[in-house]
Amino acid sequence: MHRSVRAGLRWALATLLCIPWGVNPHGTARAQNRTSPTETTRAIPARNIPVPATVSPELARIIARTPMHPTAPRTAQDWKAAVQAAATMDLQRITAVRKQFAVTVEPLRVAGVPCFMITPVRLSDRNRHRLLMHLHGGGYVFGPGESGTLEGIIMAGFSGMKVLSVDYRMPPEHPYPAAMDDATAVWKALTQREQPANMAVFGTSTGGGMTLALVQRAREEKLPLPAAIAPGTPWSDLTKTGDSYFVNEGVDNALVAYEPLLSASARLYAGAVDLEDPHLSPVYGSFSGFPPTLLTTGTRDLFLSNTVRVHRKLREAGVDARLEVYEGQSHAQYLVDPTAPESREAFEDIAGFFDAHLGT
Amino acid sequence: MHRSVRAGLRWALATLLCIPWGVNPHGTARAQNRTSPTETTRAIPARNIPVPATVSPELARIIARTPMHPTAPRTAQDWKAAVQAAATMDLQRITAVRKQFAVTVEPLRVAGVPCFMITPVRLSDRNRHRLLMHLHGGGYVFGPGESGTLEGIIMAGFSGMKVLSVDYRMPPEHPYPAAMDDATAVWKALTQREQPANMAVFGTSTGGGMTLALVQRAREEKLPLPAAIAPGTPWSDLTKTGDSYFVNEGVDNALVAYEPLLSASARLYAGAVDLEDPHLSPVYGSFSGFPPTLLTTGTRDLFLSNTVRVHRKLREAGVDARLEVYEGQSHAQYLVDPTAPESREAFEDIAGFFDAHLGT
Repeated sequence: MHRSVRAGLRWALATLLCIPWGVNPHGTARAQNRTSPTETTRAIPARNIPVPATVSPELARIIARTPMHPTAPRTAQDWKAAVQAAATMDLQRITAVRKQFAVTVEPLRVAGVPCFMITPVRLSDRNRHRLLMHLHGGGYVFGPGESGTLEGIIMAGFSGMKVLSVDYRMPPEHPYPAAMDDATAVWKALTQREQPANMAVFGTSTGGGMTLALVQRAREEKLPLPAAIAPGTPWSDLTKTGDSYFVNEGVDNALVAYEPLLSASARLYAGAVDLEDPHLSPVYGSFSGFPPTLLTTGTRDLFLSNTVRVHRKLREAGVDARLEVYEGQSHAQYLVDPTAPESREAFEDIAGFFDAHLGT
Repeated sequence: MHRSVRAGLRWALATLLCIPWGVNPHGTARAQNRTSPTETTRAIPARNIPVPATVSPELARIIARTPMHPTAPRTAQDWKAAVQAAATMDLQRITAVRKQFAVTVEPLRVAGVPCFMITPVRLSDRNRHRLLMHLHGGGYVFGPGESGTLEGIIMAGFSGMKVLSVDYRMPPEHPYPAAMDDATAVWKALTQREQPANMAVFGTSTGGGMTLALVQRAREEKLPLPAAIAPGTPWSDLTKTGDSYFVNEGVDNALVAYEPLLSASARLYAGAVDLEDPHLSPVYGSFSGFPPTLLTTGTRDLFLSNTVRVHRKLREAGVDARLEVYEGQSHAQYLVDPTAPESREAFEDIAGFFDAHLGT
């Protein structure tokens, strides 16, 4: 065998055998250092990645969208204009989605906090005394008023359960802890009028992070916990910590990157508070005593690590925690087209999970 | 707001709100086409990814190893030399690992197939009548004889259960279906002498793919099924199909890339048979009636999609299937250092899963 072939092969064999070359082959650090070069960062060359052939045509169309790096607003006035522009778009979309699902949407106040009660037109006896609390996404800045109800409507449609969507306060006017104060006040009021065993909490992205933070805060305040939670691709770490923030940068065509918009949103929400405070980044909090938890993410998700890290912490705490990872999906793309097979699968899975864990 | 800021913002809002710009904002394909550029491949620029701060120091050292692109042997003689060289390294490592775990290793034949029985020195009453069947990894080419027993030894150590590691035939001499014929013959013989309800099957990489293919084949041949299986990052698709083959190329420092070595191994094993034949690529087979299944992978794993796709198919078939994804890990890195916290976690998790599902 030619010498250069042999040299290449040593690596080849080692890797195929799951024994990266130099991993203590002789049990000594010296051997390791001699044979195994290491690096503090890995240089990944430019490459072209195809739209995967392993997803539905509906999802393939979503994955094929060219990512565009967002900019971030700088002034409070710019943030408000941006939020308003997005809300207008969302409301158009919500109007279309409401036609797909037979639900009514009614504004109301719970503990003084504005909310929307989303009620399936046909409410089964089994679901009559059940309630799902929804915390919307949008980086703690976007999704005010009815514009934040999209996921709640889809979930009510798939689960056949009532959904209470919380229109929590947001910056620039109301930074942390306003959003969590509102979510906690609503949850506390609900536990006083409904059976906690008949209730679940869910939300995606920021709403997923808030779902986790809400359980931790409810535990702190000795409130009853929900019977189950379903955080979708939760923003569990507001700092740029977690491997997929780096590996999936630009691969994820929904969030694209941490800088500049996620970073700016995190700062706007946190104000002077440390981003690693567990009340803001619940991955740093305790997961002991959590109710059954269903986590959803995708292989291209910028928040894959935000999701996986929470899953591992839940499992380490002995919690009944399930992880669902969808092939090729970027951040929260199960929300983009609720009629795509993968979206139906995700929502039906969560609905079945709630049905299995909620009392009647 | 300045016009260019506004243009950037439209995307920003849309993405943060989980509504990629142009996803049917007005419910028409025309609007979609007008506003949303698409692409058949995504150009990802060169970048540097740091070693994640979210893993143990032991795992960080493994992740920090510089990936080296392997070469592939060309002749049967070169393959044999490569396999022999790797086996020598593996046996050194196995000698070290055997000192960490109090097990005995005995060669024996089952149905004429050479195997190794790995027995914990202290075998509890609870585990006395239980048996785990192990199918080793190595791309269907590497890991002959005792050099394939590493994972079996580690699993016997963590689970306290007996492990039968199968030394199945491999190419160049014995291409498909020899390996699966051997695995099936051993399983059939075991079911005739032991309670199938007390047995599980596991393996990593190629061993994970074989575990899946074995259940499908046992079902075809009307053999009893194991009580549980744990395929680790299974090579479920021998073709370069699945998103992580592309996204994690070069990010994964264990397998690195499909070309040239995985490709060559697949061809060597398949001979004239189609790589998409479900007997070779079990992701294309049926998963109905599968026993409880625990799948393990990592966020940087070249086989993340191989694992995730199988998990989704199992869930769609109504199987009790659990997915565990480890932060920052490349392919099968839980095997590299069994004393790393993440390795202990993975093996203890699988051991607990077997303990919960196997009869006594």
